[in-house]
Amino acid sequence: MVGTVFLGGRVTRGKKLFTPGPLGTSHTVKKAMLKDVGSRDVEFVDTVKYLRNEIIKMQSRVILNLIIMATSFNATMVDNTQEQLTCGVELSDFTCIPMQGSGTYAVESVFQSAGPSPQGKVLILENGAYGKRMKKICELMQLPFFIASFPENEIVDLSRVEKILEKDDSFTMVSIVHCETSSGVINPVESIGEVVKRFLPDSIYFVDAMSSFGAIPIDLEKGNIDFLVTSANKCLEGVPGFSLVIARLNKLLVCEGKSRTLSLDLFDQYEGLEKSGQFRFTPATHSMLAFKQALHQFNDEGRADNIIREYQENREILRKGMRELGFEEFLDKSHEGYIITSYQFPKDPNFDFTKFYQLLNDKGQVIYPGKVLDAECFRIGNIGHLFPDDMRHLLRCLSDVCKEMGLKLRS
Amino acid sequence: MVGTVFLGGRVTRGKKLFTPGPLGTSHTVKKAMLKDVGSRDVEFVDTVKYLRNEIIKMQSRVILNLIIMATSFNATMVDNTQEQLTCGVELSDFTCIPMQGSGTYAVESVFQSAGPSPQGKVLILENGAYGKRMKKICELMQLPFFIASFPENEIVDLSRVEKILEKDDSFTMVSIVHCETSSGVINPVESIGEVVKRFLPDSIYFVDAMSSFGAIPIDLEKGNIDFLVTSANKCLEGVPGFSLVIARLNKLLVCEGKSRTLSLDLFDQYEGLEKSGQFRFTPATHSMLAFKQALHQFNDEGRADNIIREYQENREILRKGMRELGFEEFLDKSHEGYIITSYQFPKDPNFDFTKFYQLLNDKGQVIYPGKVLDAECFRIGNIGHLFPDDMRHLLRCLSDVCKEMGLKLRS
Repeated sequence: MVGTVFLGGRVTRGKKLFTPGPLGTSHTVKKAMLKDVGSRDVEFVDTVKYLRNEIIKMQSRVILNLIIMATSFNATMVDNTQEQLTCGVELSDFTCIPMQGSGTYAVESVFQSAGPSPQGKVLILENGAYGKRMKKICELMQLPFFIASFPENEIVDLSRVEKILEKDDSFTMVSIVHCETSSGVINPVESIGEVVKRFLPDSIYFVDAMSSFGAIPIDLEKGNIDFLVTSANKCLEGVPGFSLVIARLNKLLVCEGKSRTLSLDLFDQYEGLEKSGQFRFTPATHSMLAFKQALHQFNDEGRADNIIREYQENREILRKGMRELGFEEFLDKSHEGYIITSYQFPKDPNFDFTKFYQLLNDKGQVIYPGKVLDAECFRIGNIGHLFPDDMRHLLRCLSDVCKEMGLKLRS
Repeated sequence: MVGTVFLGGRVTRGKKLFTPGPLGTSHTVKKAMLKDVGSRDVEFVDTVKYLRNEIIKMQSRVILNLIIMATSFNATMVDNTQEQLTCGVELSDFTCIPMQGSGTYAVESVFQSAGPSPQGKVLILENGAYGKRMKKICELMQLPFFIASFPENEIVDLSRVEKILEKDDSFTMVSIVHCETSSGVINPVESIGEVVKRFLPDSIYFVDAMSSFGAIPIDLEKGNIDFLVTSANKCLEGVPGFSLVIARLNKLLVCEGKSRTLSLDLFDQYEGLEKSGQFRFTPATHSMLAFKQALHQFNDEGRADNIIREYQENREILRKGMRELGFEEFLDKSHEGYIITSYQFPKDPNFDFTKFYQLLNDKGQVIYPGKVLDAECFRIGNIGHLFPDDMRHLLRCLSDVCKEMGLKLRS
């Protein structure tokens, strides 16, 4: 299955990636990288402007979709609203700032740029590895923080957050991860944002939506979100090389001069982009050309309209097939996330993860090791350039590997 | 000239980049990106191991070449020495650490990780924009420093460095830029390194060799260099997305716990790579696949043996042609750098840089704006996938643009 793979009429090369990213991308996305552009040339400046605007427009579209779902607009009204929202981009309260480096660089850029202030103190709401990483960043920065930990297999509990904020209203920033990629849990970031603003109207509310943005709608306004970070190489289906920060302008503009690092200074990056349209420092030009094509695919070729349904379908095929094979999910049935699923290691003594991984790999199927602390798990992602046929093929490979390893999973 | 361009049998797409990077790369380098790989998969782990080792091997080869130049080894002896040096990689005093992000991220990672210490104090030797950027990093970090500034059109003066160190031996780190990409000046980093170690045997000597590594030999041992940073997308002819730090192991291993940033913690990055072969955070996988091909091209296809001569030839064609057209170099004739050249704006009142740039751009030729403070200049790079025919074509386009603008450059 390695080499050139033909599946459902879709051509791809190499192995299939069932990971949370870097993930499989379309051939046209990768083909966009077959070109060198100057990072200060007008062609590239236009590309950067385009992608910054498209991300903000996308956010307007999320709100529009929520309006459509909630009301019974007729088609003309929808068109008018869409036009207003699209035209309103220039007037938006938000801006999009691409940052060179991985998602963690973007997360840290928010802490480094918006975190420090006299008497600054962060409340980290954590239920997994990516929340714990926020703690590590604050520790290294020597930024005062309190970390509220929740079980890895549960969502962050709203009533406990309320209790914490009732007791202590000295926080200047509250941070949370939307989709904890370590387990697949989806936290209720909008409801938590409402609570945060009720108790701390002047604070900064920061959401890490790395592996969910684009596929799980988030209403920045309703959730009172000030900073949101995401990645080029998750649900927007680009390649890695940079990440994206969506920042509420009035919260960003007061960050000038706060950062103790040059590279991760979000305000300085924003100012540079606004002044000349150019990055301060060399960006991953090819990754950005790929991202332009990914956004084109997402917005203009209609992927945005189908992505939720398609990812959910992938997830359902996986869930049903894995259950039939006898694998048990780490999370209970109440969780409805459709990005990535954690599976418990089977109890069969013949199970050995390294061998299991390698045998699947030999069949061109790349799964992901686990990242929860309290249980031995592996993970299977279903985002990116993956379709029902790919999920079914993975399940067949999994079934074969179980036989090869002599695993008896059903009691 | 835009679109698919055939020149001297070499196929390329888009415009020709006469920039210091991102620069033009070969089609095979870009084609290596037509594949998605998992960042934690064995295939990618092997790629990272390969490229880290190749960079260190390359350094051994530089020393070998210097030995060959200085002596009259016979072929067998050379082969034996080469073998010893290649086998000695595992035992090397140096390690290579790729860092996500631009070159500046790698520069900052050295300051953030090796800079701070009780009574830490940096001496920055500066003669251009990239030296000044080091100052900005130290300022933001609140790291004590003294900046010794030299004229932008001269090399850093050895005798003045000696005088500074005679007066003050409290520096824990000395930093300098090898090729100041702002002007094209090449600083004598090896001689300065000898002086630094004579006065400050325990200090850290840090060289930013962003735009020179691979094309201008640097002997790390002779120059007593502890940290050297370079880029994937300069003379090694890869694409942007990450940078490289070459670190002397005994100076790196004492950096544990010093960094106040997680993303730019060089020691943590090194430890992660050594423990599992994996990056702590998502790397630009496609850029790294391209870099593997660039290194293959460089080492196995013989580019390394010819690159100095080829870049020098490009530079000579440019120098001669520009002189004939009547353009004046910013640096005087004593400078022999062959990476990038700064040209003074012509005094002709018809000269307008924006128009000049755009007219050249319309012909598919991308030059670079100036970056020296004391004079109005533009820059032309001659590194990357550029060959004599490309340089000659650029000169023809420049000649045409001068005519179109009615410029009279010769007095």
